[in-house]
Amino acid sequence: MDLTNLSVISQTLESYEETIVFKLIDRAQYAANLITYEAGKSGFRGAGNHSLLELRLRFQEQMDTMFGKYCIPEERPFVNSVSTPRIKAIIDDRGVLLEDCNVVNLTSEIKNGYIRMVPHFCAPGDDGQHGSSVEEDVYALQAISRRIHFGSLYAAESKYTADPQGFGKLITTQDEAGLMEKLTRKEVEERIIERIREKTIATQATVNRSIRRVIDPDVIVQFYREIIIPVTKKGQILYLMNRKI
Amino acid sequence: MDLTNLSVISQTLESYEETIVFKLIDRAQYAANLITYEAGKSGFRGAGNHSLLELRLRFQEQMDTMFGKYCIPEERPFVNSVSTPRIKAIIDDRGVLLEDCNVVNLTSEIKNGYIRMVPHFCAPGDDGQHGSSVEEDVYALQAISRRIHFGSLYAAESKYTADPQGFGKLITTQDEAGLMEKLTRKEVEERIIERIREKTIATQATVNRSIRRVIDPDVIVQFYREIIIPVTKKGQILYLMNRKI
Repeated sequence: MDLTNLSVISQTLESYEETIVFKLIDRAQYAANLITYEAGKSGFRGAGNHSLLELRLRFQEQMDTMFGKYCIPEERPFVNSVSTPRIKAIIDDRGVLLEDCNVVNLTSEIKNGYIRMVPHFCAPGDDGQHGSSVEEDVYALQAISRRIHFGSLYAAESKYTADPQGFGKLITTQDEAGLMEKLTRKEVEERIIERIREKTIATQATVNRSIRRVIDPDVIVQFYREIIIPVTKKGQILYLMNRKI
Repeated sequence: MDLTNLSVISQTLESYEETIVFKLIDRAQYAANLITYEAGKSGFRGAGNHSLLELRLRFQEQMDTMFGKYCIPEERPFVNSVSTPRIKAIIDDRGVLLEDCNVVNLTSEIKNGYIRMVPHFCAPGDDGQHGSSVEEDVYALQAISRRIHFGSLYAAESKYTADPQGFGKLITTQDEAGLMEKLTRKEVEERIIERIREKTIATQATVNRSIRRVIDPDVIVQFYREIIIPVTKKGQILYLMNRKI
Protein backbone atom coordinates (compact mmCIF):
# COMPACT_ATOMS: atom_id res chain seq x y z
CA MET A 1 0.00 0.00 0.00
CA ASP A 2 1.48 3.32 -1.11
CA LEU A 3 0.77 5.59 1.86
CA THR A 4 2.04 8.69 0.06
CA ASN A 5 -0.55 8.46 -2.72
CA LEU A 6 -3.68 10.47 -1.88
CA SER A 7 -5.89 8.32 -4.08
CA VAL A 8 -4.74 5.13 -2.31
CA ILE A 9 -5.36 6.82 1.03
CA SER A 10 -8.87 7.90 0.00
CA GLN A 11 -9.65 4.37 -1.16
CA THR A 12 -8.48 2.94 2.15
CA LEU A 13 -10.72 5.39 4.00
CA GLU A 14 -13.57 4.32 1.74
CA SER A 15 -12.91 0.66 2.52
CA TYR A 16 -13.35 1.39 6.25
CA GLU A 17 -16.89 2.69 5.73
CA GLU A 18 -18.62 -0.70 5.57
CA THR A 19 -17.04 -1.76 8.85
CA ILE A 20 -18.21 1.42 10.58
CA VAL A 21 -21.75 0.95 9.26
CA PHE A 22 -21.79 -2.74 10.34
CA LYS A 23 -20.62 -1.95 13.87
CA LEU A 24 -23.16 0.84 14.35
CA ILE A 25 -25.99 -1.39 13.14
CA ASP A 26 -24.92 -4.13 15.55
CA ARG A 27 -24.77 -1.63 18.42
CA ALA A 28 -28.27 -0.43 17.55
CA GLN A 29 -29.68 -3.85 18.44
CA TYR A 30 -29.28 -2.81 22.09
CA ALA A 31 -30.97 0.10 23.85
CA ALA A 32 -29.13 3.37 24.51
CA ASN A 33 -28.15 2.15 28.01
CA LEU A 34 -26.76 5.57 28.87
CA ILE A 35 -25.76 4.54 32.37
CA THR A 36 -22.86 2.59 30.83
CA TYR A 37 -21.27 5.93 29.92
CA GLU A 38 -21.57 7.44 33.40
CA ALA A 39 -18.52 7.64 35.65
CA GLY A 40 -18.82 5.61 38.82
CA LYS A 41 -21.95 3.78 37.64
CA SER A 42 -20.28 0.73 36.11
CA GLY A 43 -21.52 -1.71 38.75
CA PHE A 44 -18.21 -3.47 38.16
CA ARG A 45 -16.64 -4.91 41.29
CA GLY A 46 -13.40 -3.13 42.22
CA ALA A 47 -13.59 -0.66 39.36
CA GLY A 48 -13.45 2.73 41.03
CA ASN A 49 -14.87 5.74 39.29
CA HIS A 50 -14.76 4.59 35.67
CA SER A 51 -17.74 4.15 33.41
CA LEU A 52 -18.47 0.65 32.16
CA LEU A 53 -17.44 1.74 28.65
CA GLU A 54 -14.08 2.98 29.92
CA LEU A 55 -13.49 -0.32 31.69
CA ARG A 56 -14.30 -2.30 28.58
CA LEU A 57 -11.99 -0.08 26.52
CA ARG A 58 -9.22 -0.61 29.05
CA PHE A 59 -9.48 -4.42 29.08
CA GLN A 60 -9.95 -4.59 25.30
CA GLU A 61 -6.91 -2.45 24.62
CA GLN A 62 -4.75 -4.42 27.04
CA MET A 63 -5.68 -7.59 25.16
CA ASP A 64 -5.29 -6.01 21.73
CA THR A 65 -1.84 -4.74 22.68
CA MET A 66 -0.66 -8.27 23.44
CA PHE A 67 -1.88 -9.28 19.98
CA GLY A 68 0.09 -6.54 18.23
CA LYS A 69 -2.31 -3.60 18.00
CA TYR A 70 -1.10 -0.01 18.49
CA CYS A 71 2.21 -0.66 16.75
CA ILE A 72 1.20 1.42 13.72
CA PRO A 73 0.55 5.16 13.88
CA GLU A 74 -3.14 5.04 12.92
CA GLU A 75 -3.97 2.74 15.85
CA ARG A 76 -4.22 5.07 18.84
CA PRO A 77 -5.47 3.76 22.18
CA PHE A 78 -8.45 5.38 23.94
CA VAL A 79 -7.32 4.62 27.46
CA ASN A 80 -3.98 2.92 27.80
CA SER A 81 -0.47 3.92 27.08
CA VAL A 82 1.11 1.68 24.49
CA SER A 83 2.93 -1.36 25.80
CA THR A 84 4.82 -4.24 24.24
CA PRO A 85 3.12 -6.81 22.04
CA ARG A 86 3.55 -10.52 22.71
CA ILE A 87 3.51 -11.45 19.03
CA LYS A 88 5.69 -10.17 16.22
CA ALA A 89 3.87 -7.08 15.02
CA ILE A 90 4.23 -5.02 11.89
CA ILE A 91 6.39 -2.05 12.80
CA ASP A 92 7.41 -0.71 9.42
CA ASP A 93 8.19 2.88 8.60
CA ARG A 94 4.92 4.26 7.35
CA GLY A 95 6.23 7.72 6.57
CA VAL A 96 4.62 9.51 9.50
CA LEU A 97 6.92 12.40 10.43
CA LEU A 98 6.06 12.79 14.11
CA GLU A 99 8.32 12.47 17.14
CA ASP A 100 5.39 11.01 19.06
CA CYS A 101 2.30 9.76 17.25
CA ASN A 102 0.20 10.49 20.32
CA VAL A 103 0.27 14.22 19.57
CA VAL A 104 -2.41 13.20 17.06
CA ASN A 105 -4.70 11.32 19.43
CA LEU A 106 -8.31 12.28 18.85
CA THR A 107 -9.86 9.49 20.86
CA SER A 108 -11.46 11.76 23.40
CA GLU A 109 -13.29 13.80 20.71
CA ILE A 110 -14.29 10.53 19.06
CA LYS A 111 -15.64 9.02 22.26
CA ASN A 112 -17.57 12.15 23.22
CA GLY A 113 -19.03 12.58 19.74
CA TYR A 114 -20.00 8.93 19.58
CA ILE A 115 -21.72 8.96 22.98
CA ARG A 116 -23.71 12.02 21.92
CA MET A 117 -24.86 10.10 18.82
CA VAL A 118 -25.95 6.91 20.64
CA PRO A 119 -29.44 8.16 21.63
CA HIS A 120 -30.09 9.02 17.97
CA PHE A 121 -29.65 5.49 16.65
CA CYS A 122 -30.42 3.21 19.62
CA ALA A 123 -33.82 2.62 21.17
CA PRO A 124 -34.36 4.85 24.21
CA GLY A 125 -34.08 3.40 27.68
CA ASP A 126 -32.25 0.51 29.24
CA ASP A 127 -32.52 -3.15 28.26
CA GLY A 128 -30.14 -4.42 30.95
CA GLN A 129 -27.72 -5.75 28.31
CA HIS A 130 -24.85 -3.58 29.53
CA GLY A 131 -22.03 -6.00 28.80
CA SER A 132 -23.11 -6.59 25.20
CA SER A 133 -23.84 -2.95 24.70
CA VAL A 134 -20.37 -1.68 25.66
CA GLU A 135 -18.82 -4.57 23.72
CA GLU A 136 -20.43 -3.23 20.53
CA ASP A 137 -19.49 0.33 21.53
CA VAL A 138 -15.83 -0.63 21.67
CA TYR A 139 -15.89 -2.27 18.22
CA ALA A 140 -17.62 0.76 16.73
CA LEU A 141 -15.23 3.19 18.43
CA GLN A 142 -12.19 1.27 17.23
CA ALA A 143 -13.44 1.25 13.63
CA ILE A 144 -14.21 4.99 13.74
CA SER A 145 -10.89 5.77 15.40
CA ARG A 146 -8.89 3.85 12.81
CA ARG A 147 -10.65 5.80 10.03
CA ILE A 148 -10.04 9.17 11.65
CA HIS A 149 -6.40 8.58 12.56
CA PHE A 150 -5.57 7.02 9.21
CA GLY A 151 -7.08 10.04 7.47
CA SER A 152 -5.38 12.49 9.83
CA LEU A 153 -1.88 11.18 9.35
CA TYR A 154 -1.51 9.90 5.81
CA ALA A 155 -3.85 12.30 4.03
CA ALA A 156 -2.13 15.26 5.71
CA GLU A 157 1.35 14.03 4.82
CA SER A 158 0.32 13.39 1.24
CA LYS A 159 -1.35 16.80 0.88
CA TYR A 160 1.75 18.43 2.35
CA THR A 161 4.02 16.63 -0.08
CA ALA A 162 1.97 17.93 -3.00
CA ASP A 163 2.62 21.56 -1.94
CA PRO A 164 5.36 21.84 0.68
CA GLN A 165 5.82 25.57 0.13
CA GLY A 166 2.16 26.49 0.48
CA PHE A 167 1.73 24.36 3.61
CA GLY A 168 5.13 25.40 4.99
CA LYS A 169 4.12 29.03 5.06
CA LEU A 170 0.84 28.33 6.88
CA ILE A 171 2.65 26.11 9.38
CA THR A 172 5.33 28.75 10.08
CA THR A 173 2.72 31.41 10.73
CA GLN A 174 0.61 28.93 12.76
CA ASP A 175 -2.34 29.84 10.55
CA GLU A 176 -4.86 27.18 11.55
CA ALA A 177 -7.73 28.76 9.65
CA GLY A 178 -5.60 28.90 6.51
CA LEU A 179 -4.59 25.26 6.98
CA MET A 180 -8.23 24.24 7.42
CA GLU A 181 -9.16 25.99 4.20
CA LYS A 182 -6.27 24.47 2.28
CA LEU A 183 -7.03 20.95 3.56
CA THR A 184 -10.73 21.06 2.81
CA ARG A 185 -12.04 19.51 -0.37
CA LYS A 186 -15.75 20.20 -0.18
CA GLU A 187 -16.71 18.08 -3.20
CA VAL A 188 -14.86 15.05 -1.78
CA GLU A 189 -16.66 15.46 1.54
CA GLU A 190 -20.03 15.56 -0.19
CA ARG A 191 -19.16 12.42 -2.16
CA ILE A 192 -18.21 10.58 1.05
CA ILE A 193 -21.45 11.61 2.69
CA GLU A 194 -23.55 10.49 -0.26
CA ARG A 195 -21.71 7.17 -0.33
CA ILE A 196 -22.21 6.51 3.38
CA ARG A 197 -25.93 7.16 2.96
CA GLU A 198 -26.15 4.63 0.10
CA LYS A 199 -24.18 2.02 2.03
CA THR A 200 -26.36 2.37 5.10
CA ILE A 201 -29.48 1.92 2.98
CA ALA A 202 -28.12 -1.05 0.98
CA THR A 203 -26.82 -2.85 4.07
CA GLN A 204 -30.25 -2.73 5.67
CA ALA A 205 -32.29 -3.37 2.52
CA THR A 206 -33.18 -6.98 3.34
CA VAL A 207 -33.68 -6.59 7.10
CA ASN A 208 -36.84 -7.85 8.72
CA ARG A 209 -37.77 -4.65 10.53
CA SER A 210 -40.16 -6.36 12.91
CA ILE A 211 -37.22 -8.12 14.59
CA ARG A 212 -34.15 -5.97 13.98
CA ARG A 213 -33.69 -2.30 14.59
CA VAL A 214 -32.78 -0.23 11.55
CA ILE A 215 -30.59 2.90 11.66
CA ASP A 216 -31.81 6.03 9.95
CA PRO A 217 -29.16 6.79 7.28
CA ASP A 218 -29.43 10.48 8.21
CA VAL A 219 -27.95 9.71 11.62
CA ILE A 220 -24.80 8.18 10.16
CA VAL A 221 -24.63 10.96 7.58
CA GLN A 222 -24.84 13.54 10.34
CA PHE A 223 -22.16 11.71 12.32
CA TYR A 224 -19.85 11.82 9.31
CA ARG A 225 -20.65 15.48 8.75
CA GLU A 226 -20.32 16.65 12.35
CA ILE A 227 -17.73 14.29 13.82
CA ILE A 228 -15.82 12.02 11.47
CA ILE A 229 -14.93 14.56 8.78
CA PRO A 230 -14.19 17.60 11.00
CA VAL A 231 -12.26 15.56 13.58
CA THR A 232 -10.16 14.05 10.77
CA LYS A 233 -9.35 17.57 9.55
CA LYS A 234 -8.49 18.63 13.08
CA GLY A 235 -6.11 15.66 13.14
CA GLN A 236 -4.55 16.76 9.86
CA ILE A 237 -3.89 20.21 11.29
CA LEU A 238 -2.40 18.69 14.45
CA TYR A 239 -0.20 16.53 12.27
CA LEU A 240 1.03 19.42 10.17
CA MET A 241 1.67 21.67 13.17
CA ASN A 242 3.80 18.93 14.74
CA ARG A 243 5.43 17.60 11.60
CA LYS A 244 9.19 17.20 11.85
CA ILE A 245 10.86 19.49 9.33
CA MET B 1 -39.11 -12.46 24.60
CA ASP B 2 -41.24 -15.61 24.76
CA LEU B 3 -38.66 -18.39 24.52
CA THR B 4 -41.31 -21.11 24.31
CA ASN B 5 -42.85 -19.75 21.11
CA LEU B 6 -41.28 -21.32 18.03
CA SER B 7 -42.09 -18.37 15.85
CA VAL B 8 -40.35 -15.96 18.26
CA ILE B 9 -37.37 -18.31 18.36
CA SER B 10 -37.19 -18.46 14.55
CA GLN B 11 -37.35 -14.68 14.34
CA THR B 12 -34.52 -14.34 16.84
CA LEU B 13 -32.41 -16.75 14.79
CA GLU B 14 -33.25 -14.67 11.71
CA SER B 15 -32.15 -11.49 13.49
CA TYR B 16 -28.71 -13.04 14.12
CA GLU B 17 -28.10 -13.55 10.39
CA GLU B 18 -27.02 -9.99 9.60
CA THR B 19 -24.43 -10.06 12.36
CA ILE B 20 -22.97 -13.33 11.07
CA VAL B 21 -22.79 -11.92 7.53
CA PHE B 22 -21.14 -8.68 8.76
CA LYS B 23 -18.48 -10.53 10.77
CA LEU B 24 -17.59 -12.86 7.91
CA ILE B 25 -17.27 -9.95 5.50
CA ASP B 26 -14.99 -8.12 7.94
CA ARG B 27 -12.85 -11.24 8.40
CA ALA B 28 -12.55 -11.57 4.60
CA GLN B 29 -10.63 -8.29 4.47
CA TYR B 30 -7.61 -10.26 5.74
CA ALA B 31 -5.89 -13.19 4.04
CA ALA B 32 -6.53 -16.78 5.12
CA ASN B 33 -3.48 -16.67 7.46
CA LEU B 34 -3.82 -20.39 8.14
CA ILE B 35 -0.80 -20.44 10.45
CA THR B 36 -2.95 -18.70 13.07
CA TYR B 37 -4.93 -21.94 13.40
CA GLU B 38 -1.91 -24.18 13.87
CA ALA B 39 -1.01 -25.47 17.33
CA GLY B 40 2.35 -24.28 18.59
CA LYS B 41 2.72 -21.69 15.82
CA SER B 42 1.24 -18.70 17.61
CA GLY B 43 4.54 -16.82 17.93
CA PHE B 44 3.07 -15.56 21.20
CA ARG B 45 5.60 -15.26 24.01
CA GLY B 46 4.94 -17.74 26.81
CA ALA B 47 1.98 -19.35 25.12
CA GLY B 48 2.86 -23.01 24.92
CA ASN B 49 1.27 -25.20 22.32
CA HIS B 50 -1.88 -23.21 21.54
CA SER B 51 -2.75 -21.71 18.20
CA LEU B 52 -3.03 -17.94 18.00
CA LEU B 53 -6.80 -18.27 17.54
CA GLU B 54 -7.11 -20.36 20.70
CA LEU B 55 -5.14 -17.76 22.64
CA ARG B 56 -7.34 -14.95 21.40
CA LEU B 57 -10.46 -16.95 22.27
CA ARG B 58 -9.07 -17.56 25.75
CA PHE B 59 -8.30 -13.89 26.47
CA GLN B 60 -11.54 -12.70 24.87
CA GLU B 61 -13.67 -15.10 26.88
CA GLN B 62 -11.91 -14.19 30.13
CA MET B 63 -12.73 -10.55 29.47
CA ASP B 64 -16.29 -11.25 28.33
CA THR B 65 -16.92 -13.31 31.46
CA MET B 66 -16.04 -10.33 33.67
CA PHE B 67 -18.58 -8.29 31.69
CA GLY B 68 -21.38 -10.82 32.23
CA LYS B 69 -21.21 -13.14 29.23
CA TYR B 70 -21.85 -16.89 29.59
CA CYS B 71 -24.55 -16.42 32.22
CA ILE B 72 -27.30 -17.47 29.80
CA PRO B 73 -27.56 -20.96 28.31
CA GLU B 74 -27.03 -19.96 24.66
CA GLU B 75 -23.66 -18.36 25.43
CA ARG B 76 -21.24 -21.29 25.59
CA PRO B 77 -17.50 -20.65 25.87
CA PHE B 78 -15.08 -22.12 23.32
CA VAL B 79 -12.15 -22.47 25.67
CA ASN B 80 -12.80 -21.51 29.25
CA SER B 81 -14.91 -22.90 31.97
CA VAL B 82 -17.49 -20.40 33.14
CA SER B 83 -16.44 -18.14 36.00
CA THR B 84 -18.05 -15.33 37.92
CA PRO B 85 -18.98 -12.03 36.28
CA ARG B 86 -17.90 -8.75 37.81
CA ILE B 87 -21.08 -6.93 36.83
CA LYS B 88 -24.67 -7.82 37.58
CA ALA B 89 -25.61 -10.15 34.77
CA ILE B 90 -28.97 -11.39 33.57
CA ILE B 91 -29.45 -14.83 35.09
CA ASP B 92 -33.15 -15.46 34.62
CA ASP B 93 -34.79 -18.80 34.13
CA ARG B 94 -34.97 -19.23 30.40
CA GLY B 95 -36.77 -22.55 30.47
CA VAL B 96 -33.82 -24.72 29.52
CA LEU B 97 -34.32 -28.09 31.18
CA LEU B 98 -30.73 -29.26 31.50
CA GLU B 99 -28.74 -30.11 34.62
CA ASP B 100 -25.64 -28.69 32.93
CA CYS B 101 -25.92 -26.48 29.84
CA ASN B 102 -22.47 -27.60 28.75
CA VAL B 103 -23.84 -30.96 27.62
CA VAL B 104 -24.95 -28.90 24.62
CA ASN B 105 -21.62 -27.30 23.78
CA LEU B 106 -20.97 -27.44 20.05
CA THR B 107 -18.07 -25.02 20.00
CA SER B 108 -15.54 -27.55 18.79
CA GLU B 109 -17.67 -28.50 15.74
CA ILE B 110 -18.24 -24.79 15.10
CA LYS B 111 -14.57 -23.92 15.29
CA ASN B 112 -13.49 -26.80 13.06
CA GLY B 113 -16.21 -26.11 10.48
CA TYR B 114 -15.37 -22.42 10.47
CA ILE B 115 -11.64 -23.00 9.98
CA ARG B 116 -12.38 -25.31 7.06
CA MET B 117 -14.46 -22.52 5.49
CA VAL B 118 -11.86 -19.74 5.88
CA PRO B 119 -9.87 -20.58 2.71
CA HIS B 120 -13.12 -20.35 0.72
CA PHE B 121 -13.88 -16.74 1.57
CA CYS B 122 -10.50 -15.19 2.41
CA ALA B 123 -7.72 -14.43 -0.05
CA PRO B 124 -5.13 -17.22 -0.11
CA GLY B 125 -1.80 -16.75 1.61
CA ASP B 126 -0.57 -14.71 4.52
CA ASP B 127 -0.74 -10.93 4.86
CA GLY B 128 1.06 -10.80 8.21
CA GLN B 129 -2.01 -9.29 9.91
CA HIS B 130 -2.34 -12.15 12.37
CA GLY B 131 -3.62 -10.14 15.33
CA SER B 132 -6.41 -8.50 13.32
CA SER B 133 -7.22 -11.73 11.59
CA VAL B 134 -7.85 -13.77 14.76
CA GLU B 135 -9.69 -10.79 16.26
CA GLU B 136 -12.24 -11.01 13.43
CA ASP B 137 -12.31 -14.80 13.72
CA VAL B 138 -13.37 -14.55 17.34
CA TYR B 139 -16.20 -12.11 16.58
CA ALA B 140 -17.45 -14.33 13.76
CA LEU B 141 -17.21 -17.48 15.88
CA GLN B 142 -19.09 -15.88 18.75
CA ALA B 143 -21.91 -14.75 16.44
CA ILE B 144 -22.18 -18.20 14.85
CA SER B 145 -22.03 -19.93 18.22
CA ARG B 146 -24.80 -17.80 19.68
CA ARG B 147 -27.02 -18.68 16.70
CA ILE B 148 -26.35 -22.39 16.94
CA HIS B 149 -26.76 -22.69 20.70
CA PHE B 150 -29.85 -20.51 20.76
CA GLY B 151 -31.41 -22.69 18.05
CA SER B 152 -30.32 -25.89 19.76
CA LEU B 153 -31.83 -25.14 23.13
CA TYR B 154 -34.97 -23.10 22.63
CA ALA B 155 -36.14 -24.55 19.33
CA ALA B 156 -35.75 -28.09 20.70
CA GLU B 157 -37.65 -27.29 23.88
CA SER B 158 -40.42 -25.60 21.95
CA LYS B 159 -40.71 -28.47 19.46
CA TYR B 160 -40.81 -30.94 22.35
CA THR B 161 -43.57 -29.00 24.09
CA ALA B 162 -45.69 -29.17 20.94
CA ASP B 163 -45.59 -32.99 20.97
CA PRO B 164 -44.25 -34.39 24.24
CA GLN B 165 -45.58 -37.87 23.54
CA GLY B 166 -44.04 -38.21 20.08
CA PHE B 167 -40.67 -36.90 21.25
CA GLY B 168 -40.84 -38.80 24.54
CA LYS B 169 -41.05 -42.12 22.70
CA LEU B 170 -38.05 -41.34 20.50
CA ILE B 171 -36.05 -40.17 23.51
CA THR B 172 -36.89 -43.29 25.52
CA THR B 173 -35.78 -45.54 22.68
CA GLN B 174 -32.71 -43.32 22.04
CA ASP B 175 -33.78 -43.13 18.41
CA GLU B 176 -31.47 -40.40 17.10
CA ALA B 177 -32.42 -40.94 13.46
CA GLY B 178 -36.10 -40.66 14.36
CA LEU B 179 -35.42 -37.48 16.35
CA MET B 180 -33.48 -35.99 13.42
CA GLU B 181 -36.38 -36.69 11.09
CA LYS B 182 -38.94 -35.27 13.50
CA LEU B 183 -36.87 -32.11 14.11
CA THR B 184 -36.19 -31.39 10.46
CA ARG B 185 -38.36 -28.88 8.63
CA LYS B 186 -36.93 -28.96 5.14
CA GLU B 187 -38.96 -26.02 3.80
CA VAL B 188 -37.83 -23.81 6.71
CA GLU B 189 -34.20 -24.71 6.05
CA GLU B 190 -34.54 -23.79 2.38
CA ARG B 191 -36.13 -20.47 3.34
CA ILE B 192 -33.24 -19.68 5.70
CA ILE B 193 -30.71 -20.50 3.01
CA GLU B 194 -32.44 -18.35 0.41
CA ARG B 195 -32.61 -15.47 2.90
CA ILE B 196 -28.94 -15.68 3.82
CA ARG B 197 -28.05 -15.56 0.13
CA GLU B 198 -30.14 -12.40 -0.38
CA LYS B 199 -28.66 -10.74 2.70
CA THR B 200 -25.09 -11.47 1.62
CA ILE B 201 -25.81 -9.96 -1.79
CA ALA B 202 -27.62 -6.86 -0.47
CA THR B 203 -24.99 -6.15 2.18
CA GLN B 204 -22.26 -6.07 -0.46
CA ALA B 205 -24.27 -4.32 -3.19
CA THR B 206 -22.56 -0.94 -2.86
CA VAL B 207 -19.02 -2.18 -2.18
CA ASN B 208 -16.14 -0.83 -4.21
CA ARG B 209 -14.70 -4.17 -5.28
CA SER B 210 -11.35 -2.74 -6.25
CA ILE B 211 -10.59 -1.97 -2.60
CA ARG B 212 -12.67 -4.39 -0.53
CA ARG B 213 -12.93 -8.12 -0.83
CA VAL B 214 -16.39 -9.49 -1.49
CA ILE B 215 -17.64 -12.87 -0.24
CA ASP B 216 -19.28 -15.22 -2.70
CA PRO B 217 -22.83 -15.74 -1.32
CA ASP B 218 -22.52 -19.44 -2.19
CA VAL B 219 -19.82 -19.80 0.46
CA ILE B 220 -22.06 -18.52 3.24
CA VAL B 221 -24.96 -20.56 1.86
CA GLN B 222 -22.80 -23.67 1.91
CA PHE B 223 -21.67 -22.89 5.46
CA TYR B 224 -25.29 -22.63 6.57
CA ARG B 225 -26.16 -25.84 4.73
CA GLU B 226 -23.20 -27.91 5.93
CA ILE B 227 -22.41 -26.48 9.35
CA ILE B 228 -24.87 -24.06 10.89
CA ILE B 229 -28.10 -25.95 10.21
CA PRO B 230 -26.86 -29.54 10.84
CA VAL B 231 -24.87 -28.56 13.94
CA THR B 232 -27.95 -26.79 15.32
CA LYS B 233 -29.97 -29.97 14.78
CA LYS B 234 -27.25 -32.02 16.43
CA GLY B 235 -27.56 -29.61 19.38
CA GLN B 236 -31.33 -30.10 19.45
CA ILE B 237 -30.88 -33.88 19.65
CA LEU B 238 -28.28 -33.47 22.41
CA TYR B 239 -30.72 -31.24 24.25
CA LEU B 240 -33.58 -33.69 23.96
CA MET B 241 -31.48 -36.71 24.96
CA ASN B 242 -30.35 -34.85 28.09
CA ARG B 243 -33.61 -33.09 28.88
CA LYS B 244 -34.71 -33.43 32.50
CA ILE B 245 -38.00 -35.26 32.64
